[in-house]
Amino acid sequence: MSHQQTKKVLKNMPSIPASDQMHQAAEYFKSLQERITKAFEGLEEGASFECTAWEKTPEDRLQGYGEMRLMRGDVFEKVGVNFSFVHGVFSEEFVKQIPGAEENEGRFVACGISLVAHMKNPHAPTVHMNLRRIETAKSWFGGGADLTPTIEYEEDTTHFHDILKQACESYSETAYPTYKKWCDEYFFIKHWNEPRGVGGIFIDSLDSGDQLKDFAFIKEIGDAFLDSYMPILEKRIATDYSDADKQKQLQKRAKYVEFNLLYDRGTKFGFMTGGNPEAILMSMPPVASW
Amino acid sequence: MSHQQTKKVLKNMPSIPASDQMHQAAEYFKSLQERITKAFEGLEEGASFECTAWEKTPEDRLQGYGEMRLMRGDVFEKVGVNFSFVHGVFSEEFVKQIPGAEENEGRFVACGISLVAHMKNPHAPTVHMNLRRIETAKSWFGGGADLTPTIEYEEDTTHFHDILKQACESYSETAYPTYKKWCDEYFFIKHWNEPRGVGGIFIDSLDSGDQLKDFAFIKEIGDAFLDSYMPILEKRIATDYSDADKQKQLQKRAKYVEFNLLYDRGTKFGFMTGGNPEAILMSMPPVASW
Repeated sequence: MSHQQTKKVLKNMPSIPASDQMHQAAEYFKSLQERITKAFEGLEEGASFECTAWEKTPEDRLQGYGEMRLMRGDVFEKVGVNFSFVHGVFSEEFVKQIPGAEENEGRFVACGISLVAHMKNPHAPTVHMNLRRIETAKSWFGGGADLTPTIEYEEDTTHFHDILKQACESYSETAYPTYKKWCDEYFFIKHWNEPRGVGGIFIDSLDSGDQLKDFAFIKEIGDAFLDSYMPILEKRIATDYSDADKQKQLQKRAKYVEFNLLYDRGTKFGFMTGGNPEAILMSMPPVASW
Repeated sequence: MSHQQTKKVLKNMPSIPASDQMHQAAEYFKSLQERITKAFEGLEEGASFECTAWEKTPEDRLQGYGEMRLMRGDVFEKVGVNFSFVHGVFSEEFVKQIPGAEENEGRFVACGISLVAHMKNPHAPTVHMNLRRIETAKSWFGGGADLTPTIEYEEDTTHFHDILKQACESYSETAYPTYKKWCDEYFFIKHWNEPRGVGGIFIDSLDSGDQLKDFAFIKEIGDAFLDSYMPILEKRIATDYSDADKQKQLQKRAKYVEFNLLYDRGTKFGFMTGGNPEAILMSMPPVASW
């Protein structure tokens, strides 16, 4: 859908208008979805992404449109890369938790890209990446990326963090240590008292007052994603593995499921705003074992 | 652990004393655990339950003891039958949700049996059964049983409900329709707008004022469990099934996981009272697929 079409869809809906910044963010997230899915397809012989465009009608509590892209292949056991542009009204319970929502009768506009890749080879780590923009009476960006290996390679962890660190340094000196710490705190599985993975960066709310600068930073992260992850995949997807390695991966994934359903705010946000369960649960692993 | 030993453990802990009724319920739940695990082992050739007794020390927020019994066999792909007897203090957030907890500074005693069986054969349904007694400034029983087939057989559903109906009729005329309705309402997966399975009975809080009568009813349900489930297993565990049937089962189990982690109050209760994650997650399927 083009920039003009996006504007037209929104015009027909009784909601707050999206800012130009929101439309530009949406365009960027869509182009990033395209770039990443093309790169991932390059690692597969036979498989390609199945794309499902969806649109919510004015009858739904949540309105807007999006595109889910899902691939199940020989390298990527399951990978989802979703784009969405939604607007609507937060439920009463949710309004109090969202900055600027009370001043705005709970109305919001949001767009984002969300990605989770579960690799077939247990030597290749699971990755999660999400970038988003939200507008209520306030507006902000958020997102991040984090890595969850079954079998950890220190050099992979170092590479992943190094690339994200470079992306952060364009923004500020404190960005990387701050958002790395947020990531470690957020992706922590309380009931097991252990981290979900080896971290990355997590930005809950980016609102420096300089929207252009914030948007440029979000684009730095988006542009860095393939550089942070692809070299790791290229190194690990052909490594031999045992049944025990695979079993270990399925158990690691079980904890991923537990985190996403018990603690993840993105999942809660999705269900509480009446989102599409297929899209919300895209992050679930192809197979998990308890 | 004997009745006398139970009393001794509790005596050493700074909590509210458990009533005689609580101790009697604990004895009953333990004997039921023994009876059910023996019956299930009768269907396996080589496998038997692995029993893990645990005890929480006074340093833990939750105190008490229990026994997890877990079997992975050729008929039961994974079945857990847990007994626990715990006491402690509810977190502030939880106190307001529990009857009689505020009057009692959040202190509680609880015991129960909890069972989930995931069968290898997709023609044989998953079953869940739980019976419990809780004491705060008030005291009550709760529990129920419900069936989740992948491939539904109407005669199995009818049999399961009939046996539970008989157990309810000893208590009151309204018990069965009331608790059947509660079950349908409770085990409903909101985001898919579909029931988790084909229902059964669910009793949130049983407190008629006649403790002996209520306990007798809970025992009726416990005693009925094997009659409700074993004939179904005997009919279905040898039925031929295809890869497609198995795949359907793994997808049905994914929704079971979603329900338990997103909505189930027992799971939340467990995590919020600092329970053992191994015991709480005993209900998770051996393998699930998204």
